[in-house]
Amino acid sequence: MRKPIALVTRIDEVSEQEWRALIAELLPEESIQCFRDMSDIERKAAEIAIVANPDPAHVAELSGLSWIHSLWAGVERLVAELGVGAPPIVRLVDPELSRVMAEAVLAWTLYLHRDMPAYARQQRDRVWIQQPYRHPSRLTVGILGLGALGMAAAERLSQSDFAVKGWSRSPKDASGIECFSGDEGFDTLLGGSDVVVCLMPLTNETRGLLDKARFAVMKEGAALINFARGAIIVDTDLIASLNAGHLSHAVLDVFQEEPLPAASPFWHHPKVTVLPHISAPTDPHTAAAIVANNIRAYRTTGQLPQTVDIRRGY
Amino acid sequence: MRKPIALVTRIDEVSEQEWRALIAELLPEESIQCFRDMSDIERKAAEIAIVANPDPAHVAELSGLSWIHSLWAGVERLVAELGVGAPPIVRLVDPELSRVMAEAVLAWTLYLHRDMPAYARQQRDRVWIQQPYRHPSRLTVGILGLGALGMAAAERLSQSDFAVKGWSRSPKDASGIECFSGDEGFDTLLGGSDVVVCLMPLTNETRGLLDKARFAVMKEGAALINFARGAIIVDTDLIASLNAGHLSHAVLDVFQEEPLPAASPFWHHPKVTVLPHISAPTDPHTAAAIVANNIRAYRTTGQLPQTVDIRRGY
Ligand SMILES: NC(=O)c1ccc[n+]([C@@H]2O[C@H](COP(=O)([O-])OP(=O)(O)OC[C@H]3O[C@@H](n4cnc5c(N)ncnc54)[C@H](OP(=O)(O)O)[C@@H]3O)[C@@H](O)[C@H]2O)c1
Ligand SMILES: NC(=O)c1ccc[n+]([C@@H]2O[C@H](COP(=O)([O-])OP(=O)(O)OC[C@H]3O[C@@H](n4cnc5c(N)ncnc54)[C@H](OP(=O)(O)O)[C@@H]3O)[C@@H](O)[C@H]2O)c1
Repeated sequence: MRKPIALVTRIDEVSEQEWRALIAELLPEESIQCFRDMSDIERKAAEIAIVANPDPAHVAELSGLSWIHSLWAGVERLVAELGVGAPPIVRLVDPELSRVMAEAVLAWTLYLHRDMPAYARQQRDRVWIQQPYRHPSRLTVGILGLGALGMAAAERLSQSDFAVKGWSRSPKDASGIECFSGDEGFDTLLGGSDVVVCLMPLTNETRGLLDKARFAVMKEGAALINFARGAIIVDTDLIASLNAGHLSHAVLDVFQEEPLPAASPFWHHPKVTVLPHISAPTDPHTAAAIVANNIRAYRTTGQLPQTVDIRRGY
Repeated sequence: MRKPIALVTRIDEVSEQEWRALIAELLPEESIQCFRDMSDIERKAAEIAIVANPDPAHVAELSGLSWIHSLWAGVERLVAELGVGAPPIVRLVDPELSRVMAEAVLAWTLYLHRDMPAYARQQRDRVWIQQPYRHPSRLTVGILGLGALGMAAAERLSQSDFAVKGWSRSPKDASGIECFSGDEGFDTLLGGSDVVVCLMPLTNETRGLLDKARFAVMKEGAALINFARGAIIVDTDLIASLNAGHLSHAVLDVFQEEPLPAASPFWHHPKVTVLPHISAPTDPHTAAAIVANNIRAYRTTGQLPQTVDIRRGY
């Protein structure tokens, strides 16, 4: 009998059972059990944990773990909560998730490019004014983070004729995308973009990175889209820049606290579009297939896919 | 000396002068004159007219015309005003116009697909609910009219993984697009589409085509995008269908009367997005180049590009 696989989550029980059923169907040879249903002996025997926002105390009880598979792409909270002593973490890298995120970046870039916020205001005021149209090649979109999601978004925007720049930690080379890295590259990208899209992970380095000083470097009238993590932005600095008329608009899908508290000034800010963390929802079917493949490959070869660099934070 | 070319418009004088300058620069061998600046003799001598919403009486004064070039793609008003006795009419067919329209169709299809109207309502009410996401292949977009604009839109949507159907007068064959024609095909398309996009010309046949009976054939919860001409829709029937909860939303860029009168119920209808005829503005630079090419080819070969079928109306 193989050692059990533990499913450890703090998502609702119905969703947890759905995940269990999906993965179990793809891995009939494995015993996949929800943490709450496992005996002490089974918990100690578990070799692999599949997690989604797990209680760190539960993960600690799984003392025989060889590795952890996250059901989510973003692992900032997991890394922070489990700490440097945690077993190797594999995060979800799902081409379908990248496609959905690239689609969202295109959709909300077009939302800005085709002046949908202005036309919504005009409709409210019964005003008929044609905003000037510009060819997408005259709109520069700067992507912060050229990973699984950022690179897919950059390519999709480039296919739609937008001028695209990107920034990452390590230098990158991608056809049709002007790539930057390092501190100097950051300001060059910010100062040269009409729309800045944040797709970086939240780490010690990126927390609060987009602050007053960075907004000041951005072009007058530029817009910001944040589809990564709320804490990368200093909220009060963003609101100050919008109020001062420097930045023109922000599309925010992620927030320091989610759901966004009712008292947040973002809700009713005329220059902010609030989205409830929907830019790229995980598709349980494609994700379960990827998790199952990774586990089966591990059972066959003993090899893990690329794991998260805990010290780097992503 | 060549016979002059008359520029006849009812657009503002600054725009008219801009058009004249752009075309004249591309055709230095021609004498291109604004109607108001021409003498009686010159008016009688003009062989070609370039027009944008011209006063029909002015066109009638140009008694020696061989043909007319419209600066616009839609010629319904021109055809109606000039009548069957008019000289041959060449309309603007501009690949850049098709690209901009296809971009608009994609932008507002994504607006509906990614639930932007629902999220705007939720933001107003400070509500955090994640609408279910569906893969674009599960959203069928039906395009009415597969001409220069409709076909470009259909192809662009298909490239973005939407399921696309199209309807035209004559049968069409296009890879990845399910094509229909004829009366029966019309109801099949309407009944099978989640979003219906109108890109037909306004003719005797299409005036009032989208009425109560047609909306009833459409799927419960379907949405309508009208980027063609306002009079193709029976406004009161559309509002009744939205109010009854049958159609879910309408994106309207064109109206029976433009600018949309302040008293129109569309302005403040919660299920209507009003746009001020901006889906595909003509780019004077690309349009002037096409007009200039057509005129130069005519001078060289005596041949006209395809002309409008006045009796058919487009
Ligand atoms: N809103 C949503 O629905 C949603 C859904 C899924 C994920 N997300 C968020 O999206 C983030 C990105 O996901 P991913 O899969 O694309 O991650 P990824 O593949 O790890 O890519 C991260 C990118 O950010 C760059 N980066 C990291 N730290 C940096 C720094 N200090 N300076 C400059 N660049 C830095 C990396 O540079 P290198 O290439 O040099 O390493 C890499 O290009 C996730 O962490 C998550 O927070 C949001
Ligand atoms: N909102 C804007 O900014 C904007 C800008 C430009 C143009 N427009 C509008 O867009 C319209 C379409 O332009 P276009 O260049 O694509 O025109 P087009 O090339 O002439 O194509 C018209 C299409 O509609 C079909 N059609 C015409 N009458 C029909 C009928 N009774 N039943 C079924 N199908 C019918 C035609 O069928 P066949 O192929 O069989 O002939 C053709 O596929 C213009 O007429 C104009 O009103 C709007």
